[in-house]
Amino acid sequence: MRTVDWDDIENSVKLIDQRLLPGQLKIVACHTPQEVAEAIKSMVVRGAPALGATAGFGLATMAMNSTARTRTDFFKDLQEACSILQAARSTARNLSWGLERLMKFASTSTLNLDDLRVEILNEAKKLADEDIQINKTMAEFGANLIDDGDTIIHHCNTGALATVDWGTALGVIRMAHEQGKALHVLVDETRPRLQGSRLTAWELSQYGIPYEIISDSAAGYFLFSGQVQKVFFGADRIAANGDVANKIGTYMLALAAFDNRVPVYSVAPKSTVDLTLANGRLIPIEERSQNEVLGIFVDGQSVSPPGAKARNPAFDITPNHLLTAIVTEYGIIYPPFLENLRKFLT
Amino acid sequence: MRTVDWDDIENSVKLIDQRLLPGQLKIVACHTPQEVAEAIKSMVVRGAPALGATAGFGLATMAMNSTARTRTDFFKDLQEACSILQAARSTARNLSWGLERLMKFASTSTLNLDDLRVEILNEAKKLADEDIQINKTMAEFGANLIDDGDTIIHHCNTGALATVDWGTALGVIRMAHEQGKALHVLVDETRPRLQGSRLTAWELSQYGIPYEIISDSAAGYFLFSGQVQKVFFGADRIAANGDVANKIGTYMLALAAFDNRVPVYSVAPKSTVDLTLANGRLIPIEERSQNEVLGIFVDGQSVSPPGAKARNPAFDITPNHLLTAIVTEYGIIYPPFLENLRKFLT
Repeated sequence: MRTVDWDDIENSVKLIDQRLLPGQLKIVACHTPQEVAEAIKSMVVRGAPALGATAGFGLATMAMNSTARTRTDFFKDLQEACSILQAARSTARNLSWGLERLMKFASTSTLNLDDLRVEILNEAKKLADEDIQINKTMAEFGANLIDDGDTIIHHCNTGALATVDWGTALGVIRMAHEQGKALHVLVDETRPRLQGSRLTAWELSQYGIPYEIISDSAAGYFLFSGQVQKVFFGADRIAANGDVANKIGTYMLALAAFDNRVPVYSVAPKSTVDLTLANGRLIPIEERSQNEVLGIFVDGQSVSPPGAKARNPAFDITPNHLLTAIVTEYGIIYPPFLENLRKFLT
Repeated sequence: MRTVDWDDIENSVKLIDQRLLPGQLKIVACHTPQEVAEAIKSMVVRGAPALGATAGFGLATMAMNSTARTRTDFFKDLQEACSILQAARSTARNLSWGLERLMKFASTSTLNLDDLRVEILNEAKKLADEDIQINKTMAEFGANLIDDGDTIIHHCNTGALATVDWGTALGVIRMAHEQGKALHVLVDETRPRLQGSRLTAWELSQYGIPYEIISDSAAGYFLFSGQVQKVFFGADRIAANGDVANKIGTYMLALAAFDNRVPVYSVAPKSTVDLTLANGRLIPIEERSQNEVLGIFVDGQSVSPPGAKARNPAFDITPNHLLTAIVTEYGIIYPPFLENLRKFLT
């Protein structure tokens, strides 16, 4: 089962509702760009590569359902869909990348309108299929970085659930496991939404990879005490100089690894790289509802006083000097990133 | 109301049950060293200075209730109480400091047994009273480090609830607020036990100091984006070279502050300093139950898959080079800490 898929009968996007995992596996259908955008905002679906495919299919719902009779009106509908989808998540590069790819395909096509609708959908399907292949290619490259016996800290979720299937950073770990390497994963729980405890732990248990969940703030202890050999995470957007925007907490994790000379790897496809941004400070950071921070309960009780307020930036920037390498489908890219990202990826 | 107090009628230690805050304010009475040790283990009471006073009163329960008729038997009882209390929390220096102080007082006393019992209790009371005065002295020194308009990140709870009264790091912030400085506190929620959201947010709301709760892993974002002027936390034990053992997450917070040239202050009384340990790596780190990590709920659901395991180190070590200064009741101590801690504190 794919995290993101197209339903040819309903002409809808089918998404695993990740808010209900690990307790319940439920599929949500979205029939319009609005419904897809809402699914992204409410975190039914998350993970940069998954968002690329979801946005593509979201655009396809418009292509398939638009009542436009002229090319001009049809492209107006597509543009409106792009605006709606783009606004759903500002940080992840893959979302706009998916939309741009499909819009470029559509705008350069000479097909008639009815054929074009179907071909836009086919291009969205191709994008989704390619995501899986890209992930497996990255996993093959990245698995070479993992040694038998490694203990690895992993942040957020970057597995099958963050992509169409297979995963990025977690895909690398999965590949190393399938190669027979003995691994142990320390799973950052990843506050506030707990994608580590909810999703990564669930995936690792499915793959039979030994793991233990830790508080995000405990990563420093395990690194400092020499119990960790590698740190892996994904990326939501990578600037031209190799600065990485990723799930909140990545920066502090990378700092702690760097301080203890433990290698740090970001695993992300080319579609996550944004060569138009000189550095990470230019990447927009989404701030989400304070309820994600305040809405946890212990023993049935709220843990914050009545009226408490919270801040909730969803991503942070890891400066490039903290990264050992970036793993892409074009190979493992080492510093200097400004030079090498451009060389490998253009 | 004090966090830790003695009840002369019941001959018992009275503790605010901090596990129930902020929802409920309940007082727990402990009549024996065993009950006091259990209260420490189960986190009814926490915070290094509070543990010093609690251990003192715990020893006093034995002094007052021992049925020993000879000095030898009496001291055997006291020693047994010390062992029980000491084993309740390995990292905090203040706990053993409190016990050592009372045992030294007892063993050098020439009083008869019945008078000695009462004088041990009086010494424990004195220790508790002094804690409040020491905290206020530290707060006066530390408040000079805070400027009008500062935004401060604070980790764990170091307020009245972490001490007999007033607080260490939070006491400094409270003093600066009482001096009329406009402050804003970003409260690290402090996973896994959430002392920040539960206790610090509650205290700040009582004092009328503006605050917002953040995920521990979001501190890096706020530091990186230039929104924070100071970082304050307490200490559970400080080694001779200034390495600080404190609540898990302190190390990563200090790294992020250091990386952004934001000053980092640990506030702790002399009783937290352990000059017998050359550096922080020699400080024992308590690892607590995995249930503290796994036992949180969102929307009534567990967030980790069935059978998930967790690791839960309760403290970490912040290397001295990340600290700007250590605030004590003897003044603000700057590097070189190895030299200056010894000079100020002996």
